[in-house]
Amino acid sequence: MARRKQPRSTTTPAGLGTRDRIVLAGTELFGRNGFNATGVKQIVAEAQAPFGSLYHFFPDGKHQLAEEVIRLSGPFYPRIFEQIFDAAPDLLTGISTLFASAAYTLVDTDYADACPIATVALEVASTHEPLRRATADVFDQWISAGTSMYTRWGLDESSARSLAITTIISLEGAFVLSRSLRNTEALAVAGAAVGHAARTMIGPEDRRRNSTAD
Amino acid sequence: MARRKQPRSTTTPAGLGTRDRIVLAGTELFGRNGFNATGVKQIVAEAQAPFGSLYHFFPDGKHQLAEEVIRLSGPFYPRIFEQIFDAAPDLLTGISTLFASAAYTLVDTDYADACPIATVALEVASTHEPLRRATADVFDQWISAGTSMYTRWGLDESSARSLAITTIISLEGAFVLSRSLRNTEALAVAGAAVGHAARTMIGPEDRRRNSTAD
Repeated sequence: MARRKQPRSTTTPAGLGTRDRIVLAGTELFGRNGFNATGVKQIVAEAQAPFGSLYHFFPDGKHQLAEEVIRLSGPFYPRIFEQIFDAAPDLLTGISTLFASAAYTLVDTDYADACPIATVALEVASTHEPLRRATADVFDQWISAGTSMYTRWGLDESSARSLAITTIISLEGAFVLSRSLRNTEALAVAGAAVGHAARTMIGPEDRRRNSTAD
Repeated sequence: MARRKQPRSTTTPAGLGTRDRIVLAGTELFGRNGFNATGVKQIVAEAQAPFGSLYHFFPDGKHQLAEEVIRLSGPFYPRIFEQIFDAAPDLLTGISTLFASAAYTLVDTDYADACPIATVALEVASTHEPLRRATADVFDQWISAGTSMYTRWGLDESSARSLAITTIISLEGAFVLSRSLRNTEALAVAGAAVGHAARTMIGPEDRRRNSTAD
């Protein structure tokens, strides 16, 4: 089995408590390799924690840890979205910066770090109802957060919801292709497509204001 | 572990030989549940084949079977695309039929059957180079096939490639959300967004011809 060398985590500061280190290691490993490929041994090794500690904090084991990891991912995308859009001069620049930043992270982590829950979501969709529900709750939160944010940029509720869903699925779909193909073309195409979708939704005045990001 | 009852396969006709039944069972199980969740025992049981037969036909075991299954998926999407677009009166109708048909299949299989290789692609992207390369080859084929098809509908090469990638990532991303959320809203939004993208690429004459699908 040819295992690609993965960049060592730089996000497991020794100052964290054991429970937090386990959650952080779970977040990273489930996100990169999925739920089923990630073993308890690997998680505690990555977390530099004793084997028994995982069951001490999560008596039901890997599934319980996974549910916590998924639910903690809830605020993940919205926080990145907000930071990027808060710094953007207009909506279309925000969108293109979002996709460029996703492409940067992907290349920077050797195509390992994309969506924290997509792999697990697909793995559990037809096999594990509590975990499926946890991923659904997170996607629902992302759609709501995206809808609120786009309404703040002047879109009506229905357009904002469509654009939020388009943004999320374009990122998710582009991550599948970009991680597999090990290039960022899909993310560039996705960013342009979401920009086009946004342009059809904003009014003529906003369109003029957004024309610099054309 | 709450396992959702899955629809029994209706696509394993007893008339097939043992090897074909194993490949078919692998296609179904890897597609629905991913590579790591699918055991050799489960595959031979689904294929109604003796345990040893998998290793008889695939001496390297599950990885070898998975690579064959992935590579056989190559012609899968293009064939569906072609059938739908051959029957469509115009490009925009083809696109909306494609997404409606994906939504129909998803609901019809209790949200189990979506992309045959996406789950495996995300699972192996950072962990198994030969399988990663197999998924990349399939995505490359899909992009090429989609590009050829859209050029036949009058798009220039560069627009056709962008629209092909947009179509594939929109389907993939919508599958992630729709399988998790157990509703087809994301596929409907995705179909509309790809339709918008297509509309910006086609000439004024084609746009008039396509106006019925508006």
